[in-house]
Parts: sequence; C-alpha cells; structure tokens
Amino acid sequence: MQPLSRYLPILNWGRAYDRHILTSDLLAAVIVTIMLIPQSLAYAMLAGLPPEVGLYASILPLVAYAFFGTSRTLAVGPVAVVSLMTASAVGQIAAAGSAGYLVAAIALALLSGVMLVAMGIFRLGFLANFLSHPVISGFITASGILIAAGQLRHILGVPGHGDTLPAIVMSLAGEIGNVNIATLAIGAGVLAFLFLTRKHLKRLLVASRVPGRLADMIARAAPIAAVAVTIAAAEALDLGARGVALVGAIPQGLPAFGVPALSLDLLATLVGPAFLISIVGFVESVSVAQTLAARRRQRIDPNRELIGLGAANIAAGLSSGYPVTGGFARSVVNFDAGAQTPAAGIFTAAGIALAALFLTPLLASLPQATLAATIIVAVLSLVDLGAIRRVYAYSKSDFAAMAATILVTLGWGVELGIVAGVLLSLLLHLYRTSMPHIAVVGQVPETEHYRNVERHAVLTSPEVLSIRIDESLYFANSRYLEDRIAALVAERTELKHVILMCSAVNAIDASALESLEEINHRLTEVGIGLHLSEVKGPVMDRLKATDFLRHLNGRVFLSQHEASLCLRPQ
Amino acid sequence: MQPLSRYLPILNWGRAYDRHILTSDLLAAVIVTIMLIPQSLAYAMLAGLPPEVGLYASILPLVAYAFFGTSRTLAVGPVAVVSLMTASAVGQIAAAGSAGYLVAAIALALLSGVMLVAMGIFRLGFLANFLSHPVISGFITASGILIAAGQLRHILGVPGHGDTLPAIVMSLAGEIGNVNIATLAIGAGVLAFLFLTRKHLKRLLVASRVPGRLADMIARAAPIAAVAVTIAAAEALDLGARGVALVGAIPQGLPAFGVPALSLDLLATLVGPAFLISIVGFVESVSVAQTLAARRRQRIDPNRELIGLGAANIAAGLSSGYPVTGGFARSVVNFDAGAQTPAAGIFTAAGIALAALFLTPLLASLPQATLAATIIVAVLSLVDLGAIRRVYAYSKSDFAAMAATILVTLGWGVELGIVAGVLLSLLLHLYRTSMPHIAVVGQVPETEHYRNVERHAVLTSPEVLSIRIDESLYFANSRYLEDRIAALVAERTELKHVILMCSAVNAIDASALESLEEINHRLTEVGIGLHLSEVKGPVMDRLKATDFLRHLNGRVFLSQHEASLCLRPQ
Repeated sequence: MQPLSRYLPILNWGRAYDRHILTSDLLAAVIVTIMLIPQSLAYAMLAGLPPEVGLYASILPLVAYAFFGTSRTLAVGPVAVVSLMTASAVGQIAAAGSAGYLVAAIALALLSGVMLVAMGIFRLGFLANFLSHPVISGFITASGILIAAGQLRHILGVPGHGDTLPAIVMSLAGEIGNVNIATLAIGAGVLAFLFLTRKHLKRLLVASRVPGRLADMIARAAPIAAVAVTIAAAEALDLGARGVALVGAIPQGLPAFGVPALSLDLLATLVGPAFLISIVGFVESVSVAQTLAARRRQRIDPNRELIGLGAANIAAGLSSGYPVTGGFARSVVNFDAGAQTPAAGIFTAAGIALAALFLTPLLASLPQATLAATIIVAVLSLVDLGAIRRVYAYSKSDFAAMAATILVTLGWGVELGIVAGVLLSLLLHLYRTSMPHIAVVGQVPETEHYRNVERHAVLTSPEVLSIRIDESLYFANSRYLEDRIAALVAERTELKHVILMCSAVNAIDASALESLEEINHRLTEVGIGLHLSEVKGPVMDRLKATDFLRHLNGRVFLSQHEASLCLRPQ
Repeated sequence: MQPLSRYLPILNWGRAYDRHILTSDLLAAVIVTIMLIPQSLAYAMLAGLPPEVGLYASILPLVAYAFFGTSRTLAVGPVAVVSLMTASAVGQIAAAGSAGYLVAAIALALLSGVMLVAMGIFRLGFLANFLSHPVISGFITASGILIAAGQLRHILGVPGHGDTLPAIVMSLAGEIGNVNIATLAIGAGVLAFLFLTRKHLKRLLVASRVPGRLADMIARAAPIAAVAVTIAAAEALDLGARGVALVGAIPQGLPAFGVPALSLDLLATLVGPAFLISIVGFVESVSVAQTLAARRRQRIDPNRELIGLGAANIAAGLSSGYPVTGGFARSVVNFDAGAQTPAAGIFTAAGIALAALFLTPLLASLPQATLAATIIVAVLSLVDLGAIRRVYAYSKSDFAAMAATILVTLGWGVELGIVAGVLLSLLLHLYRTSMPHIAVVGQVPETEHYRNVERHAVLTSPEVLSIRIDESLYFANSRYLEDRIAALVAERTELKHVILMCSAVNAIDASALESLEEINHRLTEVGIGLHLSEVKGPVMDRLKATDFLRHLNGRVFLSQHEASLCLRPQ
C-alpha cells in the first residue's frame, strides 16, 4: 500500500468509483440532506449559536472527512451531546449571542481539530479507553436529560437558563406563570407529531404495503414536514406578533473562509473543554463507524479516524462552524439509504451548501419551538434506562461509576460529570486489581492437577506452601502480594518452602519485581525457600535480564507438579 | 481476638511484658534517643521550623504510635522527605520563621493525622498502591538531591532560598563571593568526619576486636560526637561573633498541649499537600515496618498502620509538632539495638522529653552547619542511582515514570513531582494493558494443545479462527479487542467461526461485556459464529447472570480442543 493512500483513503475508494456507486451515493446524500437541515439549525440553537452556524458546520467538515476518514458511511456534522458540551464550555467565557461567543465556539472547533489530528499522528487513540462503556452510557443519558430539560423553555415560550438540572428546573418553575400559549401549542403539537410518527408511521406505512426501506425514509422525513407546516402556520397566523419566538433572518450564502483573531488566553481557557469534546466525540463516532463497517465486513482504523475527525473540526473552525463529530442517527440513515463511499458526504455537503444559498430566506418564520421539539425527540432516544439496570445487575462497581457520572453531570454540568466518571472508574479498577485473587493450592489426589484448598479436597504439606496468583503483577497489586504472603507465612510455623504458581501472570512490572525481591529477601532471612512454577515465556525472558533469578534462594520449575515432587519432604 | 485489642495492639504485647523485654527496650531507647536528638533538630531546620519543634515531634507522636501501631519496632518521628514536603507546602502560605508558618505546620500534622485515621477506618490503604516503586524511588532520590542542595547554604554560610534545583543553584551561584570561611570550615569538617565514620569507623572498630554490634552503635553515634565537638569549638572560639550561624536559644521545657486557632481557609489550602504527605509517609513507613516484621516472622496490618501513623500525627499536631512518619534509619537502629515492643518508643519519647527539659541550654551554641552536614550525609544515602539503572534495564515504561518524577521534582518541586509520577505511571499502565497480547492459535499436530501460529508449526483452517486473549478484559482494552477481531475477520473471506479462548481471562467488566455483545452482534450480521472456550469458573458465573449467553450466536466449550473438533469442517 502506498504511504499517501494510507493518509488519504480517498485514493483507495476513488479509483474504483463508477456510475453505479455514484447513483447510490447521490440518493443517500439527498435523504441525509433533508434530515440534516432541521437538525443543523436545531443543534446550533442548542449550542447557543446562530442557526446558520449549524449549516456551516455541515458543509466543509463533511468534505474534509470524506478525504481523510476511514469509514465509508459515517456522516459527520453537529450532534446533540457535543453541542451541549460546546454551550457549556463557551457559556463560561462569553454571553450567548455575543460576537465573542461565536469566536469561542470557532476556537473550540480549531483546538479540538488540532488535538484530534495530533492524537492520530502520535497514535493516542487509546486515551479514549479511559471512558468505560458505563461512563459513556451514563454521560449520554444524563446529557440527553439535560438537553431535553433545557429545551422545555422553548416549548413553553419562557426565558430561562442554567447548565444543570436543578438550575434549569428552578428557572422554569419561576416562569411557569408566563407561558406563551401559542408557542406551547406549536411546541406540544410538533412534539406529539414527531413522537407519533417515530413510533407508528413506519408500521402504518408498512401495513399499507409501502416497502420497508421507503417507509423508513418517509418516517425519518417527519421533522422536515413539521418544519414546513409550522413555517406555513407562523406566516398564515402571524405568530411572530403573538409572541412566538421565530428563528428570524438567516444570512444567505456560504460561510467566509478564514480564522478569526484568537487570543492565547482564550485558547488556554478552552484546552480542557476541547480535550473532553475531542474524546467524547471520538468515542461516539468510532463506535458508530465500527458498527457500520462491520455490517459490510469493512474496517476502520481508529488512529486514522482521529485524523479524519480532526480534519473535519479544523474545517469547521475555518468556515465559521463549531465542533462536529460522527452522528449515530444520520450515519445509520446514510448507510440504510445505500451510501457506498464518502463521496455521499461530499454530495450532502453540496446539498447543505445549496440550502445555505437558497433556502435560508424561507426559514425566517420557523418557530424555535419546532426546533426544540426536534431536539427533544432526538435526545430522548439517547436516554437508556435499561442500560442502567443491566449495569447494576452485572457489576456494582461499574454501576457506581455510571451513577456518579449521571449525578455529577445532572447536578454540576457535563465537564465535571465526565471527569468524575473517568476518575471513579480508574479508582475502582485499581481497587479491584489491587487485590488479585490469590489461592493456596494443593494436589488433587493421584493427578498432576493443583487446585484451591478451599474449594477442593487436595493434599498439602505443612512444610510447603503453594500459592497461585490469578492476575498480572504490577504496582497496584504488588504490595498486596507482599502482605498476603507475609500473612500466610506468619501462620505456618513449620514452613520450609513457598512456591508461587505463575500460570495466570501475564506480566511483572518493575514494582512487582521489587516486591518479589523483597519477598525473597524476607523469606531468605527466616530460612524459607522461594520457588516459582509455570512462569510464562515472555515473563521469564524479562526476569532473565535481571538479577532476580540469581538472588532467588529457590528454583524455577516448569510445572507445579515438578516443584511439588521435588520439594515435598521425603 | 477481642475487638478492643484489634484497635489497641498495646493490649496484646502489654500482657506478656516482663523484665527481660524491659531491659532490651530500655537499651534500644537510649541508643535511639542519642541518634534522634541531632536528627530532630536538623529535620526541623530543614522544614524551616524552630529546632525545638523537632524535639516536640519526637515525644508525644512516639507514645501515640506505641498505643495504636502494629509494628513492634518502627521508630516514628520527623524524617527528611516529609520535612522537605512540609517546607514546600507551608512555604507557599507563610514566611519561614513567622508565627503563621508554625501554625500551618501544626495544621498540616493535624490534617494529615485525621486523613490517615480516616483512610485506616475506611480501609483505603490501597490508595498507596498508586505510588509505584519506580515513582517512589525516583521521588526519594530527587528529594535527597533537593535537600542536600538546599543545605549547602548552611555549609557555606550564605543566605539562600528556592524550592527547586535550578532556583537553589542560581541562588547559591549569586552568593558564592560571600562564603563565610569559619562556617565552611565547621561544615566541611563535620561532613568529612561523618562521611569517614559512616564508611570506615565500623570496619576499623571491628578490626580492633570491638564486637560487631557495638561497633555499629558507636559508628551511629558519630553525629552526636560532631554536635558535642562543634558546640565546644563554637564556645571556645566564639564562632558566633565570626559570623557562624548558631542554633541560638531553644525554649526549655515540654511543648504546650492544645490546638492553635485554625482558619478554614488555611485547612482548605493544606488539604492537597496533607494528602500527599500522608501517602508518601505511609508508603515509606509501611515498607520499613514490613521489612522489620518479616525478620522476626511478625506481621503488620497496613490498614491498622494507617491508624497508628494517623494517631502519631494528631499527637504531633496537639503538641506543637509537625508531620511525622516511620523513619528507615532509626527503625533499623531500634531493631538492631534489640527493641522488642513499642514500649521502646515510649522510653525514647521519655528520653527526648528529658532532653527538651534539660539539654536545650547546651545546644544554643550548636552551629547550624553541623546540622546541615548531618542532613546531607543522611539524605545522600537516599539517592539510589543504581535503582535508576536497574529500572531502565528492566522496563522502559517504568523508567519513563521514574524519570518524569525525578525531573519534575527537581525542576518544579515535590508536589508536582509526585503527582506527575503517579499520573504518568497510571497512563502507561493503561496504555500497556489497553493492548493485551492476543494470539491467533492453531492445533499442535497430534496433540490437544493450541499454540500461537506465529511461533509454532500448527494446524489451522480458513473457516475457523481461534484467538487466545492473554489478559483480563476491562474498559481499557475492550475496544482494542473489537478492533483486533474486526481486523482479523476482515482479512479472512472464508471464515465461518470465531473461537475466543479465554484461559487467561480472569475478569470481564461491564465495558468488556458490552464489547463482546457488540462483537457477537457484528459477527451475527455477517453470518459468522462466535464461540468461547476455556472460560474460568468465576467469569462464567458472572456471564450466566446476563443476557449475553442467550444472545451468543455460537456455543461455550469447556476446552479449546472440544471447540475445534466440533467446529472444524467435516
């Protein structure tokens, strides 16, 4: 494979491009464009940005991803969770609606893009592993709840604010007397329409003999119908004059290309949030991409995906956009609509560009309540209460990390929430592995097998202690090993030999090596032999490069049985 | 065992106390007292505190540890590294010598004591596992260098300051013209004397037929001789008038008992440093205690040690002292001198109390250079360059954590140093385990063994892929597993079955479970069966409690051979 095509996957799929693939890609692009228009406007509103910024973030980033991304069918653009994180990060710096707010959002996209590309080049994709599944799942559920609660004010037509659930609820409670009935009618109507179509339209269409795939597409176009109908209603009934908040004039045309003046102070403030957005966006995107790639036995390369997403975010920053990532719903639509190559993304970008050029005047009368309803319906599908139950049933410590993520996200905001979840899951992981399973073993009579003395009737001797260690040895558990062996030795007065059975030890780090030396040293002082058995090849290779085997007062045996035969009292 | 004696180990050893043990303990106490007097004064100076504070920290804390500690022979009191950390933490709040400085040091002792007790009660001793051996070793080496460099100004008799190596060196370089010759003569003389006695005195005494243990004791008393001789010289030659800095008047008597007025602000500022001091002190102390206990086949309980050390620090805070912990050198002396029980600590405390009552007037003429030389000789034994070499040879990633700890400690101070080391070792651990060893295996001909296809001549089939996973599956490596399996499957077009051989998988957390479900789901979509073999009992028990086995499109086999026989094409 040529080096260049490794970095520009477009050179691979571009070579085989033909008319058949073009047709598939074009069809998918039309469908995704129709879905993306209301979504882009809505997510920009969620991020506290002017609606056109959502459109801008759906043009150049898609082209950039098409050149550098490794997924054939991932659809990038503004997504709900990243929009919420943008609002939270930028809201701490500038007031929504101010010029500084937009500049900060652009800076966030650029920073996040540069970070993603750097992580890709230095192959730091493993950093995403810090986010365990329960933490991500809890974070997305909590974000969905926060977003939905935050949009309620648009449905009710009241002012409101707040980045946390208590603040949002308090703010709404204070305004409950000022609800705008016309706004509520629009908002509740669209909500009901979207929920019903999402739940029943496809089934009804299929029952009326519409083919499944077409029915699915029609159902997914429901938001655009809601947009069209409520624009018509707003104009016909002059809802703007009745206090219904409308989207208002959207600048017509394509975004300017360039970088606004950015202060170092601003960039320094945004480094932390940009990092969190990058990681969360990457994790979300890569899991979607992987799921879709597997369906067609294709592959994606996570470290190369970082570069693709980074390029998309830099493109967003260069064209007055804000942070983007691969979205789940739109990627599935793209895939199901038959997209074959990233060219579908380029066609979608062209579609959105046409919308920015020609459709924006039509959108001035769009009620904000319609967009809010679109967001609420989209994000409530992110709330996964079943996952909470499943994690609780499977593992209490995973559940603790998940619960902490949800509570801190709801109560103190998205940034603290994700950090709390990551720290707690690391802590719990270290806690778990810091006390590895260590079993005293004995010989199963008349066999060469050695099993836990507490579970099996086995033969042991008061002079020989055989200990099986069921975990790799590293700094978090090496001291525990010292403690346990000290305890086991202290209670056996006739002891002459200790055998460590290492069949499940995949690695020994420098801390654990030092602990083993310490154990050997202490046992030597009281005249007890330390022996190893069943040491794995790679572990043995490492040990051979040290002084340990020379200091070891006992021997290394290939098998536990051999050790036992040799050391048992005659 | 009665619950009370679990919390007050004194009830265990106190019952068997007799005249023979009393004699041993008294002798040890006399020797440790002689060693502790100059050390206490010196370490108080290192911490930036008045000399009497060092004595105070060597009275009540020893009594408290004797009641609550589980080690029979650990000697607690001021130690070098903790004194340096105290100076660093308190120096950020108040000027050395001010009343606020002493209050902050007392607050640090109280906070650290409360934290240690709380960690003991909640059994959080595992937190110390965050400090890997290479990080501790690097931290202690760097601290030793920092301390020695910082004491040079007392040897040279120049003013100076700085918490980092560059700052100390710059500060000394600026003062090099102002060296006080009389001070340098004392300092260099004592340094040479202490180095020579430490290196050669014991050997010379033994050659002169002095018994080994006695020779050892005499050699260890060298610092007290240096103290006596330089006091006499200072008085005879009126060195104070020649610009030699003397210790000056030390208040005579015992410390007052009580808590100074502490502001919440002060406590809040000190929480971080107090935590680091607690952890570092605990790790140092517990490793000494464990080494000594093992020599007599005794045991210590790390979580109970936390309570003992916590009680000692609270006692230090209540009696105008500063943070203490178990010291290596003094504990070894105590042990070698024959201490049998913690009563030796109580007798040592009585000895130091007598010194505070009656000896302090004699110490007024003690040159500070003598104390500085004592410190330098003591801490240079902490610098372990051999450990750096050994770690480098054994593991590059452990070495990276160690080097970062040393460089950051020297360049940015002790607190950042230890934090940098801990974070880097966590990161590297996650990085290592995030890419577990995964081997494609095949059958060794005519056996039931399955080995790595890359290392052995084995039989495989294009329709069956057997993968052995050599690590427990958890959030940090579950995504890697998805990637690897996706890659292995994508390159095999005839594939019908994947077998995961789980013989080395000791645990599967919720993230890994979800990844397995995802893998199963993706393989199902392309018509490939997923099977497991050699799943360990406890892992299987957990899996049985979930839906996973019901969703699994293949089977779970007891042995890899059984799986292979069953799935191989007929």
